[in-house]
Amino acid sequence: MTTTNKEDNFAEWYLDIVEKAGLSDKRYPIKGMNVWTPYGWRIMRQIDSYIREEFDATNHDEVCFPLLIPESQFAKEKEHIKGFDSEVYWVTHAGLDELDERLVIRPTSETAMYPMFALWIRSHQDLPLKTYQIVNTFRYETKQTRPFIRVREIHFFESHTCHTDYDDAQKQVDEDIEILARIAKKICLPYTLLVRTEWDKFPGAYYTVGIDTSMPNGRTLQMGSIHHYKTNFSEPYEITYEDKDGEHKFVHQTTYGMSERLVGALIGVHGDDQGLIIPPGIAPFQIVLIPIFKKDNQGLVMASVKEIEKVLTDAGFRVKLDDRDDRPGAKYYEWEMKGVPLRLELGGRDIENNVVSFFRRDSAEKGTIAIGNLVPGVKMLLDDISECMFNKANEIQKQRTADIDSLENIPEDKILRFGWCGCDECGHKFEDTTGFKILGRPYFKEEFKGKCIMCGKDVDAPAYAAHTM
Amino acid sequence: MTTTNKEDNFAEWYLDIVEKAGLSDKRYPIKGMNVWTPYGWRIMRQIDSYIREEFDATNHDEVCFPLLIPESQFAKEKEHIKGFDSEVYWVTHAGLDELDERLVIRPTSETAMYPMFALWIRSHQDLPLKTYQIVNTFRYETKQTRPFIRVREIHFFESHTCHTDYDDAQKQVDEDIEILARIAKKICLPYTLLVRTEWDKFPGAYYTVGIDTSMPNGRTLQMGSIHHYKTNFSEPYEITYEDKDGEHKFVHQTTYGMSERLVGALIGVHGDDQGLIIPPGIAPFQIVLIPIFKKDNQGLVMASVKEIEKVLTDAGFRVKLDDRDDRPGAKYYEWEMKGVPLRLELGGRDIENNVVSFFRRDSAEKGTIAIGNLVPGVKMLLDDISECMFNKANEIQKQRTADIDSLENIPEDKILRFGWCGCDECGHKFEDTTGFKILGRPYFKEEFKGKCIMCGKDVDAPAYAAHTM
Repeated sequence: MTTTNKEDNFAEWYLDIVEKAGLSDKRYPIKGMNVWTPYGWRIMRQIDSYIREEFDATNHDEVCFPLLIPESQFAKEKEHIKGFDSEVYWVTHAGLDELDERLVIRPTSETAMYPMFALWIRSHQDLPLKTYQIVNTFRYETKQTRPFIRVREIHFFESHTCHTDYDDAQKQVDEDIEILARIAKKICLPYTLLVRTEWDKFPGAYYTVGIDTSMPNGRTLQMGSIHHYKTNFSEPYEITYEDKDGEHKFVHQTTYGMSERLVGALIGVHGDDQGLIIPPGIAPFQIVLIPIFKKDNQGLVMASVKEIEKVLTDAGFRVKLDDRDDRPGAKYYEWEMKGVPLRLELGGRDIENNVVSFFRRDSAEKGTIAIGNLVPGVKMLLDDISECMFNKANEIQKQRTADIDSLENIPEDKILRFGWCGCDECGHKFEDTTGFKILGRPYFKEEFKGKCIMCGKDVDAPAYAAHTM
Repeated sequence: MTTTNKEDNFAEWYLDIVEKAGLSDKRYPIKGMNVWTPYGWRIMRQIDSYIREEFDATNHDEVCFPLLIPESQFAKEKEHIKGFDSEVYWVTHAGLDELDERLVIRPTSETAMYPMFALWIRSHQDLPLKTYQIVNTFRYETKQTRPFIRVREIHFFESHTCHTDYDDAQKQVDEDIEILARIAKKICLPYTLLVRTEWDKFPGAYYTVGIDTSMPNGRTLQMGSIHHYKTNFSEPYEITYEDKDGEHKFVHQTTYGMSERLVGALIGVHGDDQGLIIPPGIAPFQIVLIPIFKKDNQGLVMASVKEIEKVLTDAGFRVKLDDRDDRPGAKYYEWEMKGVPLRLELGGRDIENNVVSFFRRDSAEKGTIAIGNLVPGVKMLLDDISECMFNKANEIQKQRTADIDSLENIPEDKILRFGWCGCDECGHKFEDTTGFKILGRPYFKEEFKGKCIMCGKDVDAPAYAAHTM
């Protein structure tokens, strides 16, 4: 059990889970740079593997660019440097020498990659160029840090693509959104796709689509973002290609970024007072298998449980056999805390009855599976757990959204949906008055008729706002 | 074809292969920090996957520690800091602030991990602690850089273990050596295990075992090393445990490191003037499948070739179907340069005869496999390629070793085996006189009777020396 309650004190509960489930250790001597301990890293790597699968399948090539970026390259795109220069780490010395030019530790990799893209791309035949990398990035956070959610060393996925024109880049944004839908389903995470305001878009982007989920304290967490850069970077970095008619043109670019916040989101969205609940699709162990011994049947039970382990592993499930010399109750407690979605138990009576007993972490439901039906039975259960987790999370996210049409009695723990004419003045005034942050307008058009909550103008697309993590 | 010749000009040939096979791009604006381009990164990731498999199977837990290390932690072990302070990168500023304490970018992770190990380990029940990570490390190289072999950002594997006593740590060294044997076999790389001299051991180690292979220019390349630290780090970092009798003791530690030099080694050891030759065990594509069309049979050939792709992929092989609209000759050239171990071709005549034609990259041997025998036939060929590559490489390494018993007429392009009494004075004098570097004494005892090449004393264990990369 967590010592704190998710509903009453989300912040404490979250830290408690991170520690008790063994996800990360925040006692490292630099604040906000945490150690990925084995179990947390396993979860992250499962998510990384699935991300790789998706991006490989859509013909992106994985690359790995250097960590350090010369200041002169970093500064080429003016908005970008303005957005980042207060939050990057600077390398100024190497060995006993002062460097001729300062180096930035990447906060994101545009400025590392784009000088190389300019060398790689010559003609329209080199396009589209679709690459991605999974690396750590660094931001000098001044706000309070929190494991996975606000850290200074960030485990990061970033795809970078180059295209012949605006429309082809736009198609990439749409492909990214399809990929996101599959990833979110795998992790059972609801999300909204909102086109960020002009003052909140990524430094250098033409437009930014934020990917937000809502956390139990009513705040939203940005899990990732997708950007259309148009030619905003290709111009300063001179990334051009020769088209079919021999004309030289700037490429249009997109990026898609997601981070370890996916882990933070899955803790917050799915966990309960018994601990973590990990979606089967990315659980390091989908099944924990626990033998229940009596004095006289240890050999028989161990043989049967090993056979079950083999059958399930051969069928492709990720199985943990916990045959430590400890009470079953202590094992239940530990694996519930660690959020393994399905527990199977096998004792003498189960063997007599040709069944395995199961316990679902999501619903606490118990039952048995006939041994003859083991593999399809387990598959059905895991699929159902996944579906129930996703539906429940979506239902909760829906309940956390509220339509408002005036500034009075605004619910502080909801995502707000309201009319906004779109002008900067009304937007800033709304934010200043309410303390909420405008997350943007829906990427996919929503049915809406209303008036700007500030100036009263008629509007036919809503805006969303929330307190953010 | 490479434009240079491996035998005559190894250095040029090497750079030529790296570029033409698309392994890495050294035009990044910081010297020695290269871009992992897609094909090179695929090779590295195959090697990483196999390393993970081995260390997971021997109960090591994967972790990921922060990149940055506070200067005060870094400086705790005196030999270690002395060994590294001239070659680390220093972070001194973050955002617009100067940091209170300078941060080192990890050159290796002892000093990041050990303050945490001191928190994690309480009792003998926490031991052994066996962890590893795969990360990039950073060294400010002042010598000439060379892709994969001497770089400033180094893709790195490091395992770190803690044990109750010297002997248990020693057992870990032996396990590491067994793991190494399997990894080397997978990459078909010969190696020697030599206990480094006192003046050449890892800064802070009790002893260091160097893992060297020999390159075509006769120089040796250190691919990795295994260290017994005894309590040299656990004392300054205060990593203690309570033993069964309640007594507090320092842990004994080991580490095992390997780097992207494995890629450098495989290029140098296996490549030829047609390009790279990648061992089947870690080849991103083990098989390239090329359809040979005639005017009237395109549909039939494509259908058959896709069927073959499916059969081989389902059987677990890594297959690349190259169905681009290009001449077969151009494809042969490209995949030979990229070192794919087995090429399969399918044309109308092959289909008539119920066979697939093959070409072995290692021996240039051609032949056919009966379609009915496809999977076992391909498996046999790949196994044979692997075995032949390993045998050939070992044979060459043997030929590159020479016994000497005087300082006259020393062959400059060989690994030297000779008598050395073991004293520092004779060792340094040998190195100064010959320009060779003493690599150390065999970790596993070798039959030897001779005299110290410097002082003439009788010795019963040889030393090895070489020019190093």
